[in-house]
Amino acid sequence: MNTVETAQERKAPGRPRNAQADEAILDAVLEMLSSGQSVAAISIEAVAAKAGVGKATIYRRWPNKEALIIDAVAAMKGALPTPAGESVRDDLVMLVKANRSGRAQKYGKATVCLLPEFLKDEQLHHMYQAVIEPRRDVMRSVLRRGVQSGELRPDLDIELTLLMIQGPGMMQHMLNWNPNIADDGFAETLIDAILRGAAA
Amino acid sequence: MNTVETAQERKAPGRPRNAQADEAILDAVLEMLSSGQSVAAISIEAVAAKAGVGKATIYRRWPNKEALIIDAVAAMKGALPTPAGESVRDDLVMLVKANRSGRAQKYGKATVCLLPEFLKDEQLHHMYQAVIEPRRDVMRSVLRRGVQSGELRPDLDIELTLLMIQGPGMMQHMLNWNPNIADDGFAETLIDAILRGAAA
Repeated sequence: MNTVETAQERKAPGRPRNAQADEAILDAVLEMLSSGQSVAAISIEAVAAKAGVGKATIYRRWPNKEALIIDAVAAMKGALPTPAGESVRDDLVMLVKANRSGRAQKYGKATVCLLPEFLKDEQLHHMYQAVIEPRRDVMRSVLRRGVQSGELRPDLDIELTLLMIQGPGMMQHMLNWNPNIADDGFAETLIDAILRGAAA
Repeated sequence: MNTVETAQERKAPGRPRNAQADEAILDAVLEMLSSGQSVAAISIEAVAAKAGVGKATIYRRWPNKEALIIDAVAAMKGALPTPAGESVRDDLVMLVKANRSGRAQKYGKATVCLLPEFLKDEQLHHMYQAVIEPRRDVMRSVLRRGVQSGELRPDLDIELTLLMIQGPGMMQHMLNWNPNIADDGFAETLIDAILRGAAA
């Protein structure tokens, strides 16, 4: 960490100034993304202005815009959730809910603006995958546990089940895809529907 | 239809020139969208150049860029599919496959580039909904038929089931979301998993 500081930083009161500036910077990025701004439209200058910090503060922490954006998405998703390990159903519900807690609820649409970018920028897509893959792994291990414990079918397709759990929530929460679906109880309703099946 | 024609149009050989120009225009839009270009980056001028038609040809058929883009998406999705009405399972498989046939396979990523736009442009989102809602209605009526025939659970949540059928395919095909999932047999595997459930 570079020790040169701007006057603005030295004035920051209260919480440790680095943490406070980090939060403001990440929130600024998430707010820009979730209001529909493209990666191209987001400049370090605009982020700095919005966050009330100097550009140098951003460049000291992040080597480039892409790294900053991926860190903002990681911050939105929050810490990796830890399943309680008792009921597979309850753990899956918790994991779906974790995708909608804290910053994810406020800035849930941020990821939408990255999707077209992933088509053009393979490196950005890989950086994003590195954020979500550990989260997928948590869900995979809950599903594997369920197969072992007999809570889930022995022939369960783990990867397809992952997609069935994540796809509906992403479509619904990023895009309010189907306005006829209530937000309340979404996680429970989805997991129960996946578990019991639609057939009579 | 305006009867003024450009020299370029009068020269068009073979198929009826209007239909031919329409196809070229819609394909140009879909190619631009699916290569990651934003709506802002797509100009009537660029579409005309790519399609090899005059700008006037486009303006004669479409009042503005938004109408052209929505028509291109509708063309990508193709004609409204008609379920055979014998097996609910087979009809649902057919409907999932219909989302990946013809132009939809070639330009499947086109919709991704519209998603951020929908956050900013409510009218464009409504125009898009008007394209997809009749397709959702086809799926709804298959699900309702299944409940009535006893093929599906009597308490089935129709709207959630719609999302469970559409969400995974959209995430997977628009974004190759989970590279561990095979494209072959996707529709059958998904519908069967939704029908039988994950619980043991």
